[in-house]
Amino acid sequence: MAVYTEVTDEDLTRFLARYDCGELSFYKGIAEGVENTNYLVRTDSGRYILTLYEKRVDVADLPYFLSLKEHLAGRGVPCPLPVRDRAGEALGELNGRRAALITFLDGVSVRRPAPEHCALVGEALANLHLAGQSFAGKRANALGPKDWPQLYARFKFHAGDIVPGLAGLIESELAVHAGGLPGGLPRGVIHADLFPDNVLFLHGKLSGLIDFYFACNDCLAYDLGICLNAWCFAPDHRFDVAKGQALLAGYEKCRPLTAPERAAMPMLARAASLRFLLTRSYDWLHRQPGAIVTPHDPRDYIARLEFNRAARSIADFGGTP
Amino acid sequence: MAVYTEVTDEDLTRFLARYDCGELSFYKGIAEGVENTNYLVRTDSGRYILTLYEKRVDVADLPYFLSLKEHLAGRGVPCPLPVRDRAGEALGELNGRRAALITFLDGVSVRRPAPEHCALVGEALANLHLAGQSFAGKRANALGPKDWPQLYARFKFHAGDIVPGLAGLIESELAVHAGGLPGGLPRGVIHADLFPDNVLFLHGKLSGLIDFYFACNDCLAYDLGICLNAWCFAPDHRFDVAKGQALLAGYEKCRPLTAPERAAMPMLARAASLRFLLTRSYDWLHRQPGAIVTPHDPRDYIARLEFNRAARSIADFGGTP
Repeated sequence: MAVYTEVTDEDLTRFLARYDCGELSFYKGIAEGVENTNYLVRTDSGRYILTLYEKRVDVADLPYFLSLKEHLAGRGVPCPLPVRDRAGEALGELNGRRAALITFLDGVSVRRPAPEHCALVGEALANLHLAGQSFAGKRANALGPKDWPQLYARFKFHAGDIVPGLAGLIESELAVHAGGLPGGLPRGVIHADLFPDNVLFLHGKLSGLIDFYFACNDCLAYDLGICLNAWCFAPDHRFDVAKGQALLAGYEKCRPLTAPERAAMPMLARAASLRFLLTRSYDWLHRQPGAIVTPHDPRDYIARLEFNRAARSIADFGGTP
Repeated sequence: MAVYTEVTDEDLTRFLARYDCGELSFYKGIAEGVENTNYLVRTDSGRYILTLYEKRVDVADLPYFLSLKEHLAGRGVPCPLPVRDRAGEALGELNGRRAALITFLDGVSVRRPAPEHCALVGEALANLHLAGQSFAGKRANALGPKDWPQLYARFKFHAGDIVPGLAGLIESELAVHAGGLPGGLPRGVIHADLFPDNVLFLHGKLSGLIDFYFACNDCLAYDLGICLNAWCFAPDHRFDVAKGQALLAGYEKCRPLTAPERAAMPMLARAASLRFLLTRSYDWLHRQPGAIVTPHDPRDYIARLEFNRAARSIADFGGTP
C-alpha cells in the first residue's frame, strides 16, 4: 500500500516507448498491494497498471505469473492481461526493478460480500481452475503445509502475545497437517489468495480477478477452502451458511466437486485457516510502529480455525455431502 | 502521499448517491498530496479526485479554496472544478472528514522542466492572477513574513543540524523581511505553491494547475518570485537564465509587471526562498524515521537564497529591467 520506487515522467516515457501504446496522458502512484509499487497509467491506447516488483517478490516467479494471466485471460477468465512490448517481452526493467505493464480492469471490490457475490466468486474460481488445466507452467505452493513449521518457528516465542495459548493451538494443528493436504484430490493452478480485495464487481457482475502473486499448482479444492474462509464468515466471525451455500453452488455449477474433494472440505478449510493464521500472526508480530499499512488481525483466523475444526462435513459449510 | 482515511465501497457509494454522477466503476487511493487523502474515482459520468481533508487542513479555509477553483475554472484557468451535489453543496462529509469531489485533469507533471515549460507556467500564472482579480473571497497568507519568526522559533536550536551556520543565515534574513514584503505592489489571489509537482502538461501544452491549498491574497509578483525559485534552478542549484527569461516573458505576455514589481523582484525571490527554506527545514527536522514520504532537502533552498541575495535586478533573473 505504498509507492516504494519513484518513477518520474521521463523514466516512464522512456519505458513506454518500447510499447505500442501511444503517448502518456497521466500516471499516479496507487495505494494497492503491500508487496509492490503500482502506478495507474493512462495513454492514448487505454488504461494500465504498471507494476514494479519490489524485493520481496522472487523475480524467477514472474514469468509464471505473467504467462498464467495471459493464459487465463485468453480463456475468458477476467484477469489483467500483461502487455507485450514490440520485442514480445512482457517483463521489462524500470528504475532497477523488474516491471510489467498490465491492462486495467474496471470494478470495485466489496468490503462486505453478500451471498450473490459469493455465488459469482465460486463460479469464477471454478472457471479459473478449468482454464488452468491446460496451462503448462508449474510453481510449487511456497506457503503449503511443509512450509508452515519454519514460518511458525520465526514467531513461536511471541505467539502468546497475540492470544494466550495460541502456541498450543498452532502446534496441535501443525501436527494434524504434518502429512500435507489430503491425498487423491485433483490438482492444477490455484489462485491461493482470492480474498474480497482481489475480486472486482461492476454493475452486479464479477468484472475482475486480480493479484495472482500467490498462484501456484496445488489441490483445486484447497482454493475453495481458502474462499470459504475469506468470503463466508460474518464480521462477528460466525460462519454464514447462506454465503457458503452460494459459494459452493456457484463453484459446482461450473466444476462439480469429486467425492474425495467433498469429503476433504472440512480439512481443506481447516488447513487454509491455519495458513492465514500463520502469515497474519507473523505479519502482526513484525508490524512496524507508525507504518501506514495495518496488518490484518490474526485473531479473525483463530475464530475461523475453531469453526473449521468443529466441522464434520461439507454440509456444515452449506454444501451437498 | 498516503491514504490516511480508508473509504469502503459502501461508504463511497453512499457518498456519491448525493451527486448526479452515475454509478461507481472504480476507485483507487492515490499517492498524492502530503496533507490529505485522495482517491481517483471513475463513475459513469467521468473521472474525479475525491479529497478527504485531514487534520492539518483548517476546515474554515475549505470554502475559500473550493469557490476559488470554481471562479478560476469558470474563467478559463485549467484548474480542477469542485462538483456540486444535488443540494448545491461542494463540500460534504465522508468517514468523519470533510470531503469534496473534484474533476480530474489529464496530464503529467515534469520533473526537470525545460524553458518551454517555464514559458507556459509564466503565462498560466499571469492568467490565474488576472482571473483572480474579480474573486471576492479573502484569505490571508498563513506563511507570510509575519509568520516566519514563530516557525523559525520551533526549530532554531536544531537549525545547525542541517548545515552549520544556518541559524545565523536565517536570523539575518528574518531581519531583512521583518517589515513584510515590499509595499506598493499590486495584490490579489496567488497560488503560493506553484511547483512543478502542481502543474500538468499534455501533448506539449499546460493542461492543469492543481493543489490550491496554499492559495491566498498577497502580492501578485511574490507568486512569480516563488516560481523563479521552483522552476528556474538547475539540479546543481545554479540559476538557469534561459528558464528565468522564459518564465518572466511568458508572464509578461499576459500581464506586464509594474515598475515597482520589476524593482522588487530580487527581494521577492529572496523572500520566497526564505519561506521554503523555513518550511523545509522544519519538515526535515521533524521527519519520521521510516516514513514513506522523504521531505525535500532544505539545502536546495540555501543555495537559492544565496543566489537571490546576490541578485541586484530583475535582469539577473532574465527579465527586462
